Amino acid sequence: MLLSLLIRCTGVVGTELLNCLEKREYPSSKVLLFAHPDEAGQKLSFRGEELTIAALSEESFKGVDIALFGVGDDLSKKFAPIAVSDGCVVIDNSAAYRMDPDVPLVVPEVNPQAALEHNGIIANPNCSTIIMNVPVFPLHQMAGVKRLVVSTYQAASGAGAAAMAELEQQARDFAAGDPYTTEIFGRQYLWNLFSHNSPIYADNGYNQEEWKMVKETPKIFGDEFGIAVTCVRVPVLRAHCESINIEFNRKVTLEEVHAALEAAPGVIVVDDRVNNKHPEPLTTSGQYNVNVGRIRMDNSLPGTGIEMFVAGDQLLKGAALNAVQVAELLLKK
Amino acid sequence: MLLSLLIRCTGVVGTELLNCLEKREYPSSKVLLFAHPDEAGQKLSFRGEELTIAALSEESFKGVDIALFGVGDDLSKKFAPIAVSDGCVVIDNSAAYRMDPDVPLVVPEVNPQAALEHNGIIANPNCSTIIMNVPVFPLHQMAGVKRLVVSTYQAASGAGAAAMAELEQQARDFAAGDPYTTEIFGRQYLWNLFSHNSPIYADNGYNQEEWKMVKETPKIFGDEFGIAVTCVRVPVLRAHCESINIEFNRKVTLEEVHAALEAAPGVIVVDDRVNNKHPEPLTTSGQYNVNVGRIRMDNSLPGTGIEMFVAGDQLLKGAALNAVQVAELLLKK
Repeated sequence: MLLSLLIRCTGVVGTELLNCLEKREYPSSKVLLFAHPDEAGQKLSFRGEELTIAALSEESFKGVDIALFGVGDDLSKKFAPIAVSDGCVVIDNSAAYRMDPDVPLVVPEVNPQAALEHNGIIANPNCSTIIMNVPVFPLHQMAGVKRLVVSTYQAASGAGAAAMAELEQQARDFAAGDPYTTEIFGRQYLWNLFSHNSPIYADNGYNQEEWKMVKETPKIFGDEFGIAVTCVRVPVLRAHCESINIEFNRKVTLEEVHAALEAAPGVIVVDDRVNNKHPEPLTTSGQYNVNVGRIRMDNSLPGTGIEMFVAGDQLLKGAALNAVQVAELLLKK
Repeated sequence: MLLSLLIRCTGVVGTELLNCLEKREYPSSKVLLFAHPDEAGQKLSFRGEELTIAALSEESFKGVDIALFGVGDDLSKKFAPIAVSDGCVVIDNSAAYRMDPDVPLVVPEVNPQAALEHNGIIANPNCSTIIMNVPVFPLHQMAGVKRLVVSTYQAASGAGAAAMAELEQQARDFAAGDPYTTEIFGRQYLWNLFSHNSPIYADNGYNQEEWKMVKETPKIFGDEFGIAVTCVRVPVLRAHCESINIEFNRKVTLEEVHAALEAAPGVIVVDDRVNNKHPEPLTTSGQYNVNVGRIRMDNSLPGTGIEMFVAGDQLLKGAALNAVQVAELLLKK
């Protein structure tokens, strides 16, 4: 099994992909690293070796079994077809192919079978979509979701390593009494928050991040229901949180909701009312599982609604881990 | 008109009360400051003078026309009746009297007439309640709210001056590589967020902050509708944000929603889809008005729902300004 990773040398997803492959003992005989020629040359450690990131070319995927793409839409669109024509299966982390009807969009805890029905490319969903889907799916199986109302609390990591570094730099700027460094976000991010920085659609007023959650979820679940969502960037480094209000098709009990979440793959219930201990970005960072807490009946609906608060590591379950889990599904085939 | 302020010397609300009285040219002949005897002695500047905070006693309110209370429930409960028996009208910022049927709970943009029907005490609502009520009320008048689903992004200021200072200190701790100072919140707050630190009710799973919003709003509006709310503390200094999803009793258009908000007292619409400019805590800090943006139709409801994102200064409209506005209503009487 020859694996290749197409990554950004300056990114954080590449490092996390290697970490996941190593920690989960993915049985690859060899791993090759590629990046855009302008970025190649850097070394990353993997299984005790230093791997050099080679310059991407049209020959990069010859003989490769599985390629994990952690780059932007443009590079994915250009090189995924080349890799597929060389017999390689591409697991793509960009948005380029997610809504392509010929490409499965896979959260392994939700629709693992879809990964096996690929035509060469499998898409990894948006990070906020994945973190919402993992705990909502078992509840949808339990009682049928009628409508979700979601507000997100998204970390800097979704905007890349440079965004995380800028947020940290702003704390140093504050301590030093210096003007804030604002190259990435163009604003003070420390002690601030703002509507997600993706463009807003003129016709409906949703931003792209929100619309990804609205459109990707039905494709992953294989089922339709209403999703209203507001995406917000908060001054947190690497885990996304989401406040999720669920209206079901039937009355539910808190006991069955707890039971469904406790039994769900990829979910850890962190819900201690007495000590007010619930999911937080810091305690979730570095974890594979989505943490779920603040689980309670919605007082505004007659037994048919619940509220909950979830946190998931944006770089792991929201990106690298999900892609590696998809690669693991391919092995089983 | 003799005005007295019962405040915490270490607090921020007292300073903001004086700022509001001064900037809005409140026509008091004299302003007296009181605090718990353990805290008295500090000086605060007002209209070019230094006022000394005197030690509170049972004689403090003799001859006083209006007293603004900016202290905790216990002091309010003890001294409000004493002040009232001396003929003083108390505007109380604590939670002690908010749900008392004999005490009006007033947001001047919503129910100003209620302020005039007092029996000596008028309660100032919870900060998150006020910031939600100001923009939701004109929409309720427009089309009747059926149900709200709200998630908050609350600042450190709601937990007091020491909490704000600890958050700032944590940025210095990070820059210096020191362990985080965690005396107030017992946790890293910088680059983290957590479920609101008020106690959670064992029976329904809501925390006190959430339940205040659920219970105070119908009293202020004089009308009932469903409210589901999740309160979260984010690493922001002094403005609260809220993601508000509204289901109406009838179909609405985006045009009429905009028109109602543009015409509403205390509301500024900040909604620039092209430049992605919407309410932020930093841009709202120091402002009297609640900022409203991200106004759009809810794609999950057939014309009967909208989403919006609001920000309001927790210390001003969420506390001091609202109390001073109530005092202004009493003048008109």
